[in-house]
Parts: sequence; structure tokens; C-alpha cells
Amino acid sequence: MKVIDLTHTIHSNMPVFPKTEPPVFKVSNTHKKDGFMETKLSMYSHTGTHIDAPRHMLSKGSSLDELSIDRYIGKSTVLDFSKLDKEYIEINDLSKYKEKIAKVEFIILKTGWSKYWGEKEYFLDFPSLSIEAANYLKEFNLKGIGIDTISIDKIDSESFVVHKILLSKDILIIENLTNLDNINSEYFILSILPLKTLDADGSPVRAVAIKNKEHGSFK
Amino acid sequence: MKVIDLTHTIHSNMPVFPKTEPPVFKVSNTHKKDGFMETKLSMYSHTGTHIDAPRHMLSKGSSLDELSIDRYIGKSTVLDFSKLDKEYIEINDLSKYKEKIAKVEFIILKTGWSKYWGEKEYFLDFPSLSIEAANYLKEFNLKGIGIDTISIDKIDSESFVVHKILLSKDILIIENLTNLDNINSEYFILSILPLKTLDADGSPVRAVAIKNKEHGSFK
Repeated sequence: MKVIDLTHTIHSNMPVFPKTEPPVFKVSNTHKKDGFMETKLSMYSHTGTHIDAPRHMLSKGSSLDELSIDRYIGKSTVLDFSKLDKEYIEINDLSKYKEKIAKVEFIILKTGWSKYWGEKEYFLDFPSLSIEAANYLKEFNLKGIGIDTISIDKIDSESFVVHKILLSKDILIIENLTNLDNINSEYFILSILPLKTLDADGSPVRAVAIKNKEHGSFK
Repeated sequence: MKVIDLTHTIHSNMPVFPKTEPPVFKVSNTHKKDGFMETKLSMYSHTGTHIDAPRHMLSKGSSLDELSIDRYIGKSTVLDFSKLDKEYIEINDLSKYKEKIAKVEFIILKTGWSKYWGEKEYFLDFPSLSIEAANYLKEFNLKGIGIDTISIDKIDSESFVVHKILLSKDILIIENLTNLDNINSEYFILSILPLKTLDADGSPVRAVAIKNKEHGSFK
């Protein structure tokens, strides 16, 4: 089994979404005082590589702990838009992959923006889904859509319309993915298992691509 | 693919290890004010169903982010000690399973204690590994050992000797597992992927058992 980590490291100087704060780690127990080391972790529910629950945008949407566990793992493929060079991923960019999209449970939109992680460019000018493209994708039988940017909407979006289109169909959104260049299989298993926090509007995750060589590929 | 959740829900009234505190969730962003909902999560690194890094007990031990990602997923089996009725799981309790243990990367010690989760009994009288049994297990090629109790040492242990024996060999410890009765396969894939926090001495995890029916069992 080959496992590829698609996750940014969580630390106190990491980039975070506007109007939220970076995580704070505080050593709470020490080898010397308590005989063991523990750390108190404080972070927002959408820190780093994370998933959005329908509840994130929709007051009556499901929280992550209300969805079935098998919603967080499944057959996946990467669609490469790193040479797209325009503001929106549109229907005609996606429709050429429609047979591929129909075969999988997750798609990952690769924009190439993860290379700007930690720089101001990360928050600027990244491609996002057009409204029409989001409506097109919601008709497939997808568990989730991942992207290597800070948001699947524009950074200055106030209506979060792409989020709402997808989340209203219980299609999970995975943001801030990284290391997509290291996936060299057309199909693989994506795991985005969230923490099991009560009423979760989102969760940081350890996103991984899994290729099960021992038992055949998923092609 | 069949996925079985082995994880307790994280919430503000959950049981936690003595000398640590339960998690605190605070809604930080609201649909009304910000157009989206987020929550600030504060919790100890060993809250709920979680894994221990070598660093948890050993000041020079590895943190989770220093270990290879494939250390957190692998072939597993459950050893049932729920009818053991004694204080320690000893070498002769384990040695009858030695061929099975040699075939897997993770073993889960089922004591049955998860049924007491949320009650004072959860902290009392649970079976733990004897020192000799820990030394016996460290000679196998294991990535980790899971258990459905609050600790793999006694609750009043001050030396955490079983932890130290296993962690000194980089054998991860998974504590507070639950729902083990629902695993009905002899062998399965265990996933205990941690958050990718910097210098992690441990991490809450979404522990799951995975059975890949499509591509054959792992028996």
C-alpha cells in the first residue's frame, strides 16, 4: 500500500482564512512535572487542509458527525487545471472529463496554487469554480470536491455561492490540499476522515491518497 | 469498501485523562455576522480516541510529524480479552496468537471497557499490559497497538512503563478505541491518521477499520 500525504503542516505561523486566527499550541504537561508531555491545541475548525460540512454555510445543513463515515473515503481522481490561466474553471473545462468524473466519488481540482502556501500570492488570483460549473458538478454522484487553494469561491466572495451550491447537495469541500504533483495514478483512494467533534461545521483533516498495490489498482 | 468507525465523539462533557481538561468549543464565526460558521476548538493532544507519539513519554522520542505517513495505516487484527477477568494481559495470553500477531502491522487489544465510556467505571480496574507482555510485543514488527481503555498502563501509573517500552521502539499507542464489537473480520485495514500538527506529542484521530470487499479481503 502506498500512501501520499496531501496535507499542510499545522503550526502557529501558518496562513489562515481572513477573519479567523492561526492556531495556538501550548505545552500543558511536561515530562518533568507530570511524567508525560501533552499540548493544548487551539485552532479554528477550518484550519489548514480541512473539509467543510454543509453546516459551514447552511444553517440547516448537516454537521460532519451527522454524515455516514463512508462519505469520507472513496475513489478519486485529479483534474489538472494548473495551466488553465483564467479566473474560473468553467463547464467546458470540466465536460471533457465527464466520463472520468462519473467513475469517481471525489474529484480534486489541481490549480497549482499550493506552491504559494506561506506567501501573499496564496490569497490572490487563484482559479475558482464558476457558478455554472458548480451547478454542472452537483449533478454527478460525488461525495466531495477538493482543491489546492484557500477557498473554492473567490477570496472576496461574500455570498459563497459555489460553497452553497455544492454543500446543499451534501458534496463535501476539501480546501488547502497540497502535494498533488506526487499523485501519479489516474485513480486512487482519497481519505479525508474528519475529527469526530460534536456539531462539526468543518474539521482539519489528514488528507491522503492511497494506492493499494497488493490488491490491484483502482483503474 | 466497508468502513467501521472506532472513534468516540469529542464534546465538552467527555471523559478525559486525569490532570488534563475536557475540550472547549466556541462558535467564532456565524452565518449572520460573517456569512459562514466556524468554531474555535481547544483540546488536549490526547483527547478522546487518540494516538501517542514517542515524544509523549520520551523527551528525545519522535513527534508524529517526524514519522512516515504509512506508519498510520496497515493490516490489523483484534485480540479479544473481554473475558480475561484479570488485572494484566500477560505473555501467555498473547502467545497463543503469536502467528496472527506476526501477520499484521497493528493489533487491537479488546478489553470491553469502552462500554463504560462516560461512567466512573471507565477509569477503574481495566486490564492493561504487563511489563513482560509489553516486552514480548515489542519484538514483533508492529506499527502500533490499540486498546479500548483510557490508557495502556494502569490509571495510577507514575512511570508509564508499558508506554515507554512500546514507544521506545516507535510502536504507536492508540487509546480510547470503541465499537470493536462491530468488526467482524479477522483481518482489516486500520487507519489512525493524525492531524499534521508541528512537534505533535499525540493527536486525536478518526480511527476506522476498512474492509475492501471490491478487491478481496485481507485474510
